[in-house]
Amino acid sequence: MISEDTCIEERFARSALTEDNPYQTTDDAMRWLNERGAENALLVERVPFTALREWSFESSTGDLVHRTGKFFRVHGIRIHVSEGTEERSWLQPIVDQPEIGILGIIAKQIDGQLFFLMQAKLEPGNPAGVQLTPTLQATRSNYTQVHQGARPKYLDYFLDRAAATPLVDQLQFEQGSTFLRKRNRNVIVEVLEDVPVEEDFRWFTLGQIKKLLRVPNLVSMDARTVLACIPLRDRAGHRALGRGGDGGPQKGSFGARLYQSMAHGERPANADHVVQSWLTDVKCRVQLSVERIPLADMPGWARHERAISHEGARFFEVVGVTVRAKNREVSAWDQPLVSPREKGMVAFLVKEIGGVLHFLVQGVVEPGNPDIVSVGATVHCVLSERSVHDPASWPPYMEEAVHAPQSAIRYSCVQSEEGGRFYHAENEYRVVEVDPTFAAVPSDRYCWVTLRQLNELVRWGLVNVEARSLLACLSIT
Amino acid sequence: MISEDTCIEERFARSALTEDNPYQTTDDAMRWLNERGAENALLVERVPFTALREWSFESSTGDLVHRTGKFFRVHGIRIHVSEGTEERSWLQPIVDQPEIGILGIIAKQIDGQLFFLMQAKLEPGNPAGVQLTPTLQATRSNYTQVHQGARPKYLDYFLDRAAATPLVDQLQFEQGSTFLRKRNRNVIVEVLEDVPVEEDFRWFTLGQIKKLLRVPNLVSMDARTVLACIPLRDRAGHRALGRGGDGGPQKGSFGARLYQSMAHGERPANADHVVQSWLTDVKCRVQLSVERIPLADMPGWARHERAISHEGARFFEVVGVTVRAKNREVSAWDQPLVSPREKGMVAFLVKEIGGVLHFLVQGVVEPGNPDIVSVGATVHCVLSERSVHDPASWPPYMEEAVHAPQSAIRYSCVQSEEGGRFYHAENEYRVVEVDPTFAAVPSDRYCWVTLRQLNELVRWGLVNVEARSLLACLSIT
Repeated sequence: MISEDTCIEERFARSALTEDNPYQTTDDAMRWLNERGAENALLVERVPFTALREWSFESSTGDLVHRTGKFFRVHGIRIHVSEGTEERSWLQPIVDQPEIGILGIIAKQIDGQLFFLMQAKLEPGNPAGVQLTPTLQATRSNYTQVHQGARPKYLDYFLDRAAATPLVDQLQFEQGSTFLRKRNRNVIVEVLEDVPVEEDFRWFTLGQIKKLLRVPNLVSMDARTVLACIPLRDRAGHRALGRGGDGGPQKGSFGARLYQSMAHGERPANADHVVQSWLTDVKCRVQLSVERIPLADMPGWARHERAISHEGARFFEVVGVTVRAKNREVSAWDQPLVSPREKGMVAFLVKEIGGVLHFLVQGVVEPGNPDIVSVGATVHCVLSERSVHDPASWPPYMEEAVHAPQSAIRYSCVQSEEGGRFYHAENEYRVVEVDPTFAAVPSDRYCWVTLRQLNELVRWGLVNVEARSLLACLSIT
Repeated sequence: MISEDTCIEERFARSALTEDNPYQTTDDAMRWLNERGAENALLVERVPFTALREWSFESSTGDLVHRTGKFFRVHGIRIHVSEGTEERSWLQPIVDQPEIGILGIIAKQIDGQLFFLMQAKLEPGNPAGVQLTPTLQATRSNYTQVHQGARPKYLDYFLDRAAATPLVDQLQFEQGSTFLRKRNRNVIVEVLEDVPVEEDFRWFTLGQIKKLLRVPNLVSMDARTVLACIPLRDRAGHRALGRGGDGGPQKGSFGARLYQSMAHGERPANADHVVQSWLTDVKCRVQLSVERIPLADMPGWARHERAISHEGARFFEVVGVTVRAKNREVSAWDQPLVSPREKGMVAFLVKEIGGVLHFLVQGVVEPGNPDIVSVGATVHCVLSERSVHDPASWPPYMEEAVHAPQSAIRYSCVQSEEGGRFYHAENEYRVVEVDPTFAAVPSDRYCWVTLRQLNELVRWGLVNVEARSLLACLSIT
């Protein structure tokens, strides 16, 4: 059965190396997305909270709740972080949605190549309309039919284990800054039988999706987090796949070096047990307490007619929208959304150590983390007190990320966060390669890891969604 | 640096294969343990709760608390488990100790062989006096000196990363039936400089400790959980280590087959992503809610003069003891302990699939689990409603474990749980090999995995302490 395992990693890698697709070219896909976007356009309007028909402020707590008590609840939390002699405390609203949803992609082997069934979909908070999303995105409320809408398409492929074989099946948590332990099951299932292709759905190679990840705001966060779970390698080692003729990574290219860093036996600067010890140590040094409080009882935050806002104009706001649409499980609804104050920055510094690309990761403390600390990108400047516009507030390595010379930027693109929960939330995602002589500031909070090690940390749910998002954008071509 | 990583796994394996020790034979070690046990004997007396000087029932809640509010608290919980159409609810007391302690062993390479500094130590709840324990076991209260006692010996080797190199450094949770998310940092550090050997401490090879694990109740749970984290293999594959002359595993022996099952490239029946999918699926099917309630507010449980007991005489009791001792950080104290109603049973069924040993694991739901479900042994009949004495209540595979023919029993020994929290808590630990034709009852709750896969699950804190305990008992000789 080992060959089956080998097979999966290699099959993913092969699909990542090609845009050859008998169903559509990548340009066709762009046109199709735009066309579906126009067809299914959403009318989204910011409204006062009093205009939300299904949502209201609970009288006893001031929490923002759905009339059924389902979906999610916005309440307050008091956070206390201590680390050595340093102590920090703050209050903030948080979205409480403890159930586990599904983000699922159907894969199918067609003529020896793996294809992925992706959907053209709009969400009310999207900054730029239509996005490429997984085959299925369903909250537990969705698939247990709380909202009485239509049954989500393709759901049964994910609920019935006989109908499909999981290739990826991992629990991943989402934004720790704004969600209290929200998790989704990130799944890719392979289906052997014929799969009907519904309107708004199309087959893509992984290489085509990677190409679309170079376009701002086009591939949804839900798609990115699932893609980030995929190991791209051949198990045998880092022999180049499909070199030359059939479009393999070009030797010495950034893609080929990523591929090498993902391989087994890649010679990491820090052995696996050293990386684990680093993470254990950060978790033991930080103490995080998160206490639930009523939304009405939050000094420093004010509830206005159209927004719940921080008086210092920091973090984010909670706003309300009404939405009308043709092509949804329900045709009109309203809901709260989290609206960031500014565009954030998420960046990896990478460098060669011993000839192998390494990523600088850090331990990030956020209130919604399931276990104190998540593994994050080198720069994680998102929805926090720090501002991209105020260099005095910048975290370590922000300077290197923002002011990187063009020649050092391996990836840079604006991507948006989940439009079903966030309103126009964008981050600049960036990978910057620094010189092998670049010395990281000595700090227990950071560690150099290879892509294989990072993929392993992703696998067990230890890497935060922003870092996963950025990893998904990396292409081995 | 990959060679360093290879080195560690191989060095552990080499130490596991030998009892050669210039400091003491294994027989010497037994005599030394008995002698230390006599020297440091504890006088433990069960007393009424009113006789506990430092502990009392909090007036507002009835919770059992220390006067400082530190160490731990016994309160109540209401548990609700739902899975498909099945719903279960119950109330029980639980020990709440959310801080992270340290269980640490110092390792030192002496003349090319790895030795481990172990302590002879007594705990009030031990069923049979002295035990072999890690170099250090310290709660956070211990090492932040809440109880004003002496500073634990060897503490600085674990707090000062410059003094020692971690070989193992993992967060592991403990009994999910009685602890609310109690975790310890399980650490093995290698020290290069000379280490003073204090009274009550001695150097052991891993092979010697494995030998002592065949003696009932002699190696403590704290030692076992740390030992369970150790990968025993050479990274290159399963070439036999030190075959023949220098005491390697005998070809075809159970030890050699364990070693093969631990190797990379061992051909598992279920590929790694299939095992992960199995665990993800169990977590998604089970919903667990744990709600804190006052200890005073627990229908079905009664507080007597000397015990808090379940009226159906099930689960466990909470009792109080006073302790006098010579050789402790503090010389006399009293404390509550958890006292099981009966001896439990923890067993792995193993069988060869494709010529490779596989272990049958199950998803175990207990209230103190950090993430709904832990990976447990095939039979996990501990501190629950099920009774070893009542076959009608037996879980699946209990029959095979209890009534295994002698020729199929690969390991069987009574081991005790942590004597600092449990009073005379013993479980029968067993490994039973079944015929390759043995068919497991089809159930989504169980999965066959190799020892390598199980070790990987241990590494990320996903395997419960009872299963880890049993894994520690396995010897590759």
